[in-house]
Amino acid sequence: MVQLTGEIKESLQAAKLAFLATASKSGIPNVVPIAAFKVRDEETLLISDQYFNKTLANLKENKEIALSWWGEKGGFQIKGTVTLHTNDEIFRENIAWMKESFPKFTPKSAVLVKITGGYIVKPDPEPGKKIL
Amino acid sequence: MVQLTGEIKESLQAAKLAFLATASKSGIPNVVPIAAFKVRDEETLLISDQYFNKTLANLKENKEIALSWWGEKGGFQIKGTVTLHTNDEIFRENIAWMKESFPKFTPKSAVLVKITGGYIVKPDPEPGKKIL
Repeated sequence: MVQLTGEIKESLQAAKLAFLATASKSGIPNVVPIAAFKVRDEETLLISDQYFNKTLANLKENKEIALSWWGEKGGFQIKGTVTLHTNDEIFRENIAWMKESFPKFTPKSAVLVKITGGYIVKPDPEPGKKIL
Repeated sequence: MVQLTGEIKESLQAAKLAFLATASKSGIPNVVPIAAFKVRDEETLLISDQYFNKTLANLKENKEIALSWWGEKGGFQIKGTVTLHTNDEIFRENIAWMKESFPKFTPKSAVLVKITGGYIVKPDPEPGKKIL
């Protein structure tokens, strides 16, 4: 069980934008900026999909993701595996969250991320260090 | 032959930070923020590696990358294939560039990116649209 620390959680919650990387089955990476993400609990993130194109195609064939961001106090990378939700409790939770936080967004699917690892991305003290 | 347009080139040149995605041979994505990147010419980017850890390990087994950024006027995604350089003309070019632009950085390797595609990442008019 991998759990977010307070430091990573605060850093992600303060970030306005994060970059979501996926990969096709054949290993071609794709990375896009996203705004509609949140810490759902210590072990999961929720990402609302409004515009995913290649990202969604990749997730349908490869469930592994990486998410990175850079805020005022540096940044992190989280890795995880996803499940896609379009017509269930998680999707309804996603719709309610968008209605409150991003009322202009119309979600197509909810991407639930089970966190599998966390990494430092700033140079000091040790770039790429695994911390979760 | 894929060539950068003026709009993408200007957008990348104005960006202070971009996010570099790679993937392991088994398709696990990795994404990190980078500052030492530049448009080398219409068909290639140069990325200076000071701190790459998992990124470098991935590039040694899978040459495909994606790079995305978000600036004041929106953002793009570039895809490409890389060659790694540690003891040749490209690496010496990289060292000279760091000396001038990022004097505190000591490059370990130069990552030359041959551009294979370019994409819009903002929602309008068509998210994920291939433009190169």
